[in-house]
Order: sequence, then C-alpha cells, then structure tokens
Amino acid sequence: MTDVDTASSARPPAPNVRLESEELNPAFVAAIAAAVSRSDGDGLAQLIQDLHEADVGALIEALEPDDRPRFILLLGSRFDFTALTEVDDAVREAVLAELPQDAIVEGVAELPIDDAVYILEDLDSDEKDEILDRLPSPERVALQRSLDFPEESAGRRMQTDFVAVPPFWGVDQTQRYLRETADLPEAFSELFVVDPRYRLVGSVPLDKLLRASRNTRIGELASEDRHRVRATDDQEDVARLLQRYNMLSVPVVDDGDRLVGVMTVDDVVDVIQDEADEDLKALGGVRGEEELSDSVWYITRSRFSWLFVNLVTAFVAASVLDVFKGQLQQMVALAVLAPIVASQGGNAATQTMTVAVRALATRELTRSNALRVVWREVRVGMLNGFGFAVLTGAIASLWFDSIGLGLVIGCAMVINMLAGALGGILIPLVLDRYRADPAVSSGVFVTTVTDVVGFFAFLGIATLWFGLS
Amino acid sequence: MTDVDTASSARPPAPNVRLESEELNPAFVAAIAAAVSRSDGDGLAQLIQDLHEADVGALIEALEPDDRPRFILLLGSRFDFTALTEVDDAVREAVLAELPQDAIVEGVAELPIDDAVYILEDLDSDEKDEILDRLPSPERVALQRSLDFPEESAGRRMQTDFVAVPPFWGVDQTQRYLRETADLPEAFSELFVVDPRYRLVGSVPLDKLLRASRNTRIGELASEDRHRVRATDDQEDVARLLQRYNMLSVPVVDDGDRLVGVMTVDDVVDVIQDEADEDLKALGGVRGEEELSDSVWYITRSRFSWLFVNLVTAFVAASVLDVFKGQLQQMVALAVLAPIVASQGGNAATQTMTVAVRALATRELTRSNALRVVWREVRVGMLNGFGFAVLTGAIASLWFDSIGLGLVIGCAMVINMLAGALGGILIPLVLDRYRADPAVSSGVFVTTVTDVVGFFAFLGIATLWFGLS
Repeated sequence: MTDVDTASSARPPAPNVRLESEELNPAFVAAIAAAVSRSDGDGLAQLIQDLHEADVGALIEALEPDDRPRFILLLGSRFDFTALTEVDDAVREAVLAELPQDAIVEGVAELPIDDAVYILEDLDSDEKDEILDRLPSPERVALQRSLDFPEESAGRRMQTDFVAVPPFWGVDQTQRYLRETADLPEAFSELFVVDPRYRLVGSVPLDKLLRASRNTRIGELASEDRHRVRATDDQEDVARLLQRYNMLSVPVVDDGDRLVGVMTVDDVVDVIQDEADEDLKALGGVRGEEELSDSVWYITRSRFSWLFVNLVTAFVAASVLDVFKGQLQQMVALAVLAPIVASQGGNAATQTMTVAVRALATRELTRSNALRVVWREVRVGMLNGFGFAVLTGAIASLWFDSIGLGLVIGCAMVINMLAGALGGILIPLVLDRYRADPAVSSGVFVTTVTDVVGFFAFLGIATLWFGLS
Repeated sequence: MTDVDTASSARPPAPNVRLESEELNPAFVAAIAAAVSRSDGDGLAQLIQDLHEADVGALIEALEPDDRPRFILLLGSRFDFTALTEVDDAVREAVLAELPQDAIVEGVAELPIDDAVYILEDLDSDEKDEILDRLPSPERVALQRSLDFPEESAGRRMQTDFVAVPPFWGVDQTQRYLRETADLPEAFSELFVVDPRYRLVGSVPLDKLLRASRNTRIGELASEDRHRVRATDDQEDVARLLQRYNMLSVPVVDDGDRLVGVMTVDDVVDVIQDEADEDLKALGGVRGEEELSDSVWYITRSRFSWLFVNLVTAFVAASVLDVFKGQLQQMVALAVLAPIVASQGGNAATQTMTVAVRALATRELTRSNALRVVWREVRVGMLNGFGFAVLTGAIASLWFDSIGLGLVIGCAMVINMLAGALGGILIPLVLDRYRADPAVSSGVFVTTVTDVVGFFAFLGIATLWFGLS
C-alpha cells in the first residue's frame, strides 16, 4: 500500500498495469481504487491515459462493483467505451444499468459500429430504442441496420468501415485517393473493389497495391475472393472459415451480394475460444455463459438444474441397487464393490464422450467417419475392459478371499466398459443427429447407462454365480 | 458412386470439395480415392488444382492410411507440402515415415520457414539432420536457426519473411522499393523499421504508408510498438497477447532486440483453440494430444493410465464402505443410498472445478481475486447443499419410510456438497500454485474427496443416529 499512497499524492510514474506474470498489478488496481474513492477524475485520467482498452476493461472488472460506474463517470468524456466491450457480460450489464443515459449516448456515439452494437445489443429493447433515438442520424441508421441482423450473426460483428473503389481506377488514382481522403477507416489492410451497384468484385491486399506498377487498373489486381460470407451467417461459421483457411479477413455481403462490411480474424478469435469454453463448461455441468463475475444467487440457480437432473439419475441407479437388496444383505462385499464397477465404466465413457463431443464441434467427426470412430472406441473399450477386469478381479479375489467374486467383478467390468465406450460415442452422435447440443446433454445419459449397466451386470452375475436370491 | 465413376472417366467438372454443411463431400473423396487406386497422377492434379491447402490436408486425412503417401507421390512436384501442416500430428508422422527422403527434401525446400519447421520438428533428430544436410544453404541455415528455439516457442512459429526498412527512407523511396523489389514476402501488412544493427525501431502498417504524404520519413510514421515478443517466448503467451489486445500481428525479436520474425494472429488461432481443447480433454481424462486419427493401441494405453488412477481412488472409496460393512448389513438402505451422496458431491465439485480450471487457464482467476471466488463457491455449495438436503431427505424418508434416514442423508448432503465446493476450488488453486496443470490432475483428487467425505459423512452420521455398530 505504501507505494500506492506515494503514487497518488506526488504522482510519480504509476506502477505497471500488469505484472511479469501478465496478471493485473494489484498495486495499480489499488491506485485506481484510491483515485475513485477520492473522486479524483484527473488522477484517474492520468493513470489510464496510455492504457489499451483491454487493460481498462480488466481494471473495471477488478474494481468493486460499486466503484465501476463511478470510475466511468469520473472519467467522463475521457472514458473510451470500447473498454466495455472487453468485460464480462454480467459486468457490462450491471455497469450500464447504473450509468445515466446521457453518458451512454455520448459514449456509444464515439464508437465504431461493431463495438456500439456489442454494447447496445444486450439492453432492454425500450432502453435501446431510447438511446438510438438520441444518436445522430448516420450512426443511428448504421446501428439500426446492424441490430436488425440476427443475434451472433456476421452482420452484428462486422466492421462497417472499409475502403471500396471501382475497378476502373488506376493504382495512381487509388493511391492519391487514399492520401487525400480524410475520413478513411482507422486501420485497414485491403481495398475492396465494387461495381457501380456496390456488388463485391474482389479485393486487393495493400501489399499488392504497393507492388503494382502505377498505371495498372485496380480491376486487374483484384483477386476474386474465394470466400465471402453473408451478413446473416452465424459468427461461429465465419470463425471456422477464417480459421480453416488461415485468413486474416473476409468480406461480408448482403443478400444482393452488395458489400456491407468486413470481418477480421481478431474479431473471431474470441468466438473460437468461447465455443471451446462452452463445450468444456457444458461437459462439466456448468452453463456456457457462466462467468466469474456472476452473482452467487444466479450461479446457484443455474447449477441447481444440472445437479437436479443428476439427482434423478442417481436415484435411478439407486433403485437398481434396491432391486438387489436381498443379495447385498447376504453378501455385503457386493455393496462395497458395486460402486467400483459403475465408476470405472463412467470414467471410460466420459473419456470417449469428451473426444466425441469435441470432434463433433470441430467437424472432425462427421457422418463419413462415424462408423470408423465407433468401431475404434469399441475396440479401445474392449481392450481396457479386459485389462481392468484382470486387475480388479485379482484385487477383489485377494481382498475378499474369493476367486468367484473376482471372476464376477471381472465379467461385469468388461461388460460395463464396453457399454461405456458404446454409450460414450453413440449418445453424442445421436444427440447431434437430432440437433441437440451433445456437450450439454451427453453426460447425464452416459453416466445413467454406466451406473445402471454396471450395477445390473455386477449384481446380476453375482446372483447367478453365487445362487443368491 | 455413379457420378464419381462418370466424373473420373469423362472428367466433367468435379463435385464440390465441401458440402453445404461444410463437411468434406464424400463424392469428392471417393473421386480422389478412385484416382489414387488408378495411379492417375494427372487426374489427381486436376481434381485438386484449385483447392486450398487446408482442404487438401482434410482430403489426406479422409483417405485410407495406405492411400495417403501414394496420393502425395502420384502428385509429385505438384503436391504442395503446406497441406501437411494442416493434418493431425499422427497422420503427418505416418505419412512422412512412408515417403522417400527425396520427396521430403524437395517438398520442404519449397516451403516458408515456419511451415518447414512445423513439418520437420517432429522427425527423429537423425532424419531431421539428414534432410537439413540435403537442403540448399540459405534454407538450411534459416531452418536450423528456427529449430534451435525451444519447442512451442515463438521462434518456431514465426514467419521469417518480412519487410524491414531504415528510418531515414522517405515514403516515396519506400514505395519505389516495394514496387521494384522482386523477392518480397508473399503477403505482408506492415513494414518494420530497423536501425543499422537491425534492432527494431517500430512498425508502419501499410495503410499508414499509403496515407502519408510522399516526402514524410518512415521514421516519423513508425509507431513504437507497444508490444514485441522474444523468440524464446512460449507460443501460448504470444497467443494470449494477440488475443487480449486484438492485434493482427506482433514483431518477434531476439535477445539483442534485433528483429527476427513476425507472428500473425492466424498462426495462433489454432494455439488458442488447442489450449482450450487440451483443458477440455484433460478434464475428461484424455490426453490433450489425443487425435481422432490415433491408433487403437495408442489410445488404449494412453487412456489406461487415467483409468488406473481412477481405479485406485475407487478402491479407496470402497475401503471406506468396507469400514462400515456391519452397518450396511444391518441396514441395507444405507448401501442403496450411499452412492447418491457421493455422486451429488462429485458433480457439484466437478462444476466448481471446471470453472476454476478454465478461469486459471485464461488468467481470469488470479491471486488477487482467489479469495473472492473461493468465498463465492462456498456460498453456492451451501445453498445448493441445503436445497438438495431437503429434496433428497424427503425422497429417502418416503422411500424407506424413515424420517431418521431422511435427516441423516440431508446432513450428509450438506457436508458433502460443501466439501465438493471447497475441493473443487482449492485443489485447482493449490495445483496451479505448485505449477502442476490443474486441468490434468484436479479431477482425481476432487472425486476422491467427495467419495470419501460422502461415504464417511453418510455412514458415520447413520451409525450415530441409529446406534449401529
């Protein structure tokens, strides 16, 4: 704390915003928090003046919830609203709810369309309309047009600022245009060539323009883009396209093939990571949208539903045990060992399911290779089933001094690990075929299968082998 | 199959390589396979002539393993080795093992350094050296230099082809240089400004060059890059940096701050996805490197080790049940219900652990907010614990007609869900602190905790409540 206090009174160079380890510097966060509590807007402005909006966003998240809107209001027009595109949804929504509408209108008016859409799209439609009404006309129209595209579509995420030129211009004329036009986009790496009706003809990367001789016509330089996307396409599809073909950007066209925007790969890196994250969370029984900044109550409710489904399946498995009550009482070793069979099957199934879910998401697992993969998983399940049958059988025989018990648990293990392998691959495939998200629902079905098959196989075979009843 | 046969005899336009759904077109794959089995190199060349290397890579993966090297050999010099950077590691290794060294040398010699490194780095060091020896000298030296950087470092992934100019050049001179130099990189979107000792001064995006007036000096245009990375930096760190600051590229320097390469975001999109995928697979008990094309035997062994660890923990849990053998025999309902307590705790713990592991990986969970998050998870665990205590207690009471049993299972549920919440957050935090990958090892510890605590709490409280022994 000492250096923070010094920092804020005498204003020597502020501590670095991030530590060596890339995490936010607690001393910097403390300096910001101190300036907020002193209502020192100028101090704040000085602290954050050289920061990237991503770091400003991270700082907002690191502040106490009450300090976040105060931080923004103290900075006033010196606050760049782009930073709000860099925070968790829950944080953004809470902050926007606290800010006066004037501040939002002013802040949004300064933003490129894609960032403005990102901030406005989660507001209530009433509030969104009020804010739109108060924006100057060109921004309002452009924003409205982007917001009319479906959620999570390319139309919502694209940059609408780009440079388009006609094919008959020469390289020289184009270069003069670029040198002399004041309101070009802030940054661009290619020119688009459009016909008089603004239909996309092709694109010219800037390095190609620079290499061309001066009297070449732009139309000759334009390579017909192999790929273009529609504004209504899902952002995930665009992300996969850019990723698959290692592209830095792709033009976005409307239904009439007219150029309306451009999507660059830095816009979709987050989409690709979010998609993998959502699968990961779904497999762990957590909603894809859950964020570190959500409230206790929100998280409790959202996790409750998955746990509830799990409770139902646990009772289903328990009712299988209940069927064999008599046998469990006659031979308590069965009660001790039954969970082992269920758990090994469950884990083998989870392995298979994890691979299947991800391969489906990345389109590596398709109808054409599904059979090959199922057959592979069955063989893996058999092999590991036999391996663990021998291992578990030997331990159980020694533990309870009964070779019979070892044989029984061994057979049950092979059956359940095979069931696990089949369930682990077939359930995601079937869910995917019927357009349910396999990441979200596979787990429940799969563990129900391995619990039920595991208990039935083990206790059923034991009943026959030992002549229990 | 009909249209394939027609396609290959009369050679009308080939079917599209991908279907509407973005998956590979089976008809196209069949046409390729047919051409391979006819040893029809020209037919193959015609089929793939307009394809992107990513699609050629996908085709190679879709072929039968024996057909893959044949496909490449039939194409000969018409095969672009870049396609081999687009296939799974296991596929690439198998294909390279089958190809004659001559073919590899010729293929690699044509590639940009980063792609060549990608292909060569997984070979045995003997074979790598032999191939390097046979390459022409400039390629060999550049390749050797990249290969000397650590695995998965920026030095291995960077593009070594870039444009660097001195700060005293004018815009006009620079443009003339770009127009008149023949061996510029294939594509670039910025110029780097270097001093006479090749130390990085800054960079000039091409749009800035085009907008500048003709007599401006390059040095004035160069913005000092906020970020540069070292060639020895880990590729994941570079990926996070580009992602955090929405950058399209970052210069790579050596220890003397000399410019040695550039990394662009399209190079690291895969890194970001792979990292999330590895966490996802690790949480599912599968090795991060497991690929759909791995052999049955390889997968069986690699999954065996995780299942083995799990078997040990299952026996630990079973031995807790064994301690309470007498009680289970006296009251078989306990044997029926005990797995429910363990399973609810395990699932609650998995939820918490999933969130914690991902937040640690993305650096959202750090030392500064760890306490806040732990406290949040404890409250979520308590709330859901009470909820499920009531629910499970009520069902158990009705099922076994015993209010006492309902109370006992309710208490055990609260205890185990709290244990799950604590284990789910503390275990990943501790593993991370001691630099173990929390995604890989958290699961085992966490379920051991909830199994042991669940069985002990339920059977222990039951023993006391019902006076069993």
